[in-house]
Amino acid sequence: MFGPGLLFVVSGPSGAGKDTLVEALRTRMPRLKYSVSATTRPPRRGEKDGISYFFWTREAFERRVAEGAFLEHREYNGNLYGTPRDFVERTLTDGYDLIMKPEVNGALRIQQAFPDAVLIFILPDKFSHLRERLEARRTETNEEIARRLEIAHAEVQSIRQFDYIVINEERRSEEAVNDLEAIVRAEKFRIHRWGDDSIREVEHS
Amino acid sequence: MFGPGLLFVVSGPSGAGKDTLVEALRTRMPRLKYSVSATTRPPRRGEKDGISYFFWTREAFERRVAEGAFLEHREYNGNLYGTPRDFVERTLTDGYDLIMKPEVNGALRIQQAFPDAVLIFILPDKFSHLRERLEARRTETNEEIARRLEIAHAEVQSIRQFDYIVINEERRSEEAVNDLEAIVRAEKFRIHRWGDDSIREVEHS
Repeated sequence: MFGPGLLFVVSGPSGAGKDTLVEALRTRMPRLKYSVSATTRPPRRGEKDGISYFFWTREAFERRVAEGAFLEHREYNGNLYGTPRDFVERTLTDGYDLIMKPEVNGALRIQQAFPDAVLIFILPDKFSHLRERLEARRTETNEEIARRLEIAHAEVQSIRQFDYIVINEERRSEEAVNDLEAIVRAEKFRIHRWGDDSIREVEHS
Repeated sequence: MFGPGLLFVVSGPSGAGKDTLVEALRTRMPRLKYSVSATTRPPRRGEKDGISYFFWTREAFERRVAEGAFLEHREYNGNLYGTPRDFVERTLTDGYDLIMKPEVNGALRIQQAFPDAVLIFILPDKFSHLRERLEARRTETNEEIARRLEIAHAEVQSIRQFDYIVINEERRSEEAVNDLEAIVRAEKFRIHRWGDDSIREVEHS
């Protein structure tokens, strides 16, 4: 009935909570495939190679860039990040829905490659919470936090190019997961997700 | 944060099950307002005036048509049906979300009056089930059932003008209610539902 799988791109400023939200969403929707990003930044505590990210050296990363192995890649805050092409293309062709969570510029490049992708911007309820969260996770220096906040302000300038905005309120992230789940579920029923053949079949039933 | 309320128009062929689905949805989402239609057809068993429909005489109905009291009205299978204007306009202006379930032609006229309305087409999984359901509810004669099936085939020709298609599978109507609920929830987060002011506020935060 439905065509190829749908691609959901969840993005937003660092500290808006997209990692936690996407993890909770994947627990609820186990059939949703997940595209693991690659990065040259060092793993944070608890992060696992091949699950949180593919942690590659800059040399290995750049070799893969040269081979055309990325759908998109970018330098962000001094590290390289990228979306490996193979898995995404194969998964969507096989008809599975797929979720990924690149940085905002990465999301916009994915949109260029996949105009049908559904882009969801995760926004903190108050911008001041971004600083608190970044400070609380203690994985960045003060300079890095200042830099991330600066980037965050630049990132929201792209918000109009997204399809949905979900607010991740302090202490109500369960609500934001519900919102994400509703979006993923509802998008399947949009008329333009139906192939022309399926609609013609209905019209002639 | 959000502008005026959203209007959800649930429609589809007679017998597709939209009455039951909308009733279940309203139980789950009690804050969703409901626009009661008016009709000149006689009440079916269990239907209550002012709740299921406003049951009006043809004379009273036509007087209100002349007064401009309807957003849209139409003759369907020998009876008049219409959507009273006042309640809909007031509810949306006050910022409440509203659901209604007119016949398919009514839905299309509502779309002309409210281009932002979200139109959802309820489709039976198999067209043969329509006949079975119409026969099972024993409220129509055989001629009426034949006529309703003919109308149903005409109605699906308008399916491309809807925003969503939800399949109401036999014995899985709980799933269809989940789908409807997801659509109602997700639509609020679509970027074009955000007022320009709200987005500008985010951009300058």
